Amino acid sequence: MAKPSKATLSSVSDPAALRRSIRGGAFKGQTAGQAPGYLQGNLAILPAADASDFLRFCVRNPKPCPLIAVGDPGDPRLPNLGADIDIRTDVPRYRIFLDGVFVNSADDLTAIWRDDFVSFVLGCSFSFEDALMRTAIPVRHIDAGANAPMYITNIETTPAGRFGGPLIVSMRAFSPADAIRATILTDRYPLAHGAPIHFGDPAQIGIADLQKPDFGNEPVMHPGDVPVFWACGVTPQSAIRAARPEIAITHEPGFMLVTDRLAEGGLPQPRPAA
Amino acid sequence: MAKPSKATLSSVSDPAALRRSIRGGAFKGQTAGQAPGYLQGNLAILPAADASDFLRFCVRNPKPCPLIAVGDPGDPRLPNLGADIDIRTDVPRYRIFLDGVFVNSADDLTAIWRDDFVSFVLGCSFSFEDALMRTAIPVRHIDAGANAPMYITNIETTPAGRFGGPLIVSMRAFSPADAIRATILTDRYPLAHGAPIHFGDPAQIGIADLQKPDFGNEPVMHPGDVPVFWACGVTPQSAIRAARPEIAITHEPGFMLVTDRLAEGGLPQPRPAA
Repeated sequence: MAKPSKATLSSVSDPAALRRSIRGGAFKGQTAGQAPGYLQGNLAILPAADASDFLRFCVRNPKPCPLIAVGDPGDPRLPNLGADIDIRTDVPRYRIFLDGVFVNSADDLTAIWRDDFVSFVLGCSFSFEDALMRTAIPVRHIDAGANAPMYITNIETTPAGRFGGPLIVSMRAFSPADAIRATILTDRYPLAHGAPIHFGDPAQIGIADLQKPDFGNEPVMHPGDVPVFWACGVTPQSAIRAARPEIAITHEPGFMLVTDRLAEGGLPQPRPAA
Repeated sequence: MAKPSKATLSSVSDPAALRRSIRGGAFKGQTAGQAPGYLQGNLAILPAADASDFLRFCVRNPKPCPLIAVGDPGDPRLPNLGADIDIRTDVPRYRIFLDGVFVNSADDLTAIWRDDFVSFVLGCSFSFEDALMRTAIPVRHIDAGANAPMYITNIETTPAGRFGGPLIVSMRAFSPADAIRATILTDRYPLAHGAPIHFGDPAQIGIADLQKPDFGNEPVMHPGDVPVFWACGVTPQSAIRAARPEIAITHEPGFMLVTDRLAEGGLPQPRPAA
């Protein structure tokens, strides 16, 4: 959701090397544009007491909460996403919440890790935005160097235990022809929120004023553009805050977990042992 | 996985009406061909003590275990799949396992329901087989009135807690041209095991003799056919048996839960309240 940067000469193309730099403290920046082509994910860490409910919440709301991995209780490894991943150290910046209230940021969780912590990694919109740009569909907020506008809708998620609340959407504006292409293209990325959930009249999903997003920047729209709305990863973050778990840890927006999985890879394919 | 029957004059087109007939004891048969166009699912019920591990197992192995719903502990309802569903009565026949051993079948779970039971509904291959037939791709075992052959492979699932073991696949044989069409078509049904995981040489995935499946019937192959292998819903059933949970309940093969969700519907789409 953070300001994406163009891939530069300094961007690291190997996700394992990037994680080593993050782990060692050499890389402290945002991850947009880093290790291009590899899947990046949103992070949520919860105590086991809340993890079952949150896991059910994700399963019931796959468009805002596309699960790409869930760890074992107390285990900081996520071998499905990278053999070396240690979730305590491999995200450049974390946010720590106590009883749903943000208390501070951190760049290492080793000192506060608990043997009942469960890690969740959820797909994010980076993958489909990359795909749009590669297909020469302009993404206006990226071209303007801004964040996508995000809105709280009147659509309720399907709750699980204490986790629930409204669906939050991100908006991108396109010409009608590009909106059609973007709809078809993003449907191919179910682990990155998939196809849009709405286009056109914002009032139909409870958005009173398109110019006043609840998160992110003001929309960038050209004459004739249609607003198109996707389920957004802020939805589970908002659900976690509202559930007020004793402790919760997320990534800092823009500072994602970079995985070894290819963004284009789709569902993990079972393979014979090499 | 059971012998599919052609839709007949007696097939019920309304899934809620079919469930009422099952609940009342009037319909006791297999569900293949019933309520055509609606998603049917495999069932697994486990105590809460095992449910978290099994849920993680499904998330980690989405091709054999495509989750379409998970219930709250003790709650027999699955409102996402049908407002009236009572999982204790709405499947025509259940199988009950104690410590991983089959003990008996049942057509009603009301007397043995516990307040820690968690229901899981997983997508099954009916949806994609329907789609193949509608696209005029011959499905040989259905044309022969047989079950698909199923094989234990040398591919390991990604374990979670006590749940793990080999990937089990079903095989369908096609001409090369139809194998290509079937690959593309089934990829559109991620909730019905999605695209195949292998085609051609069975030995590459640890199948010693294609003529001797571990489950189902002998393969039906025409000259020039290529065997194509899909992840199969027997995988989680086998994992449950091997994990030896205190109690586990599944559907009887062929006697599925018929849902209100359309087989073509894809991921559940968030919608504004009506």
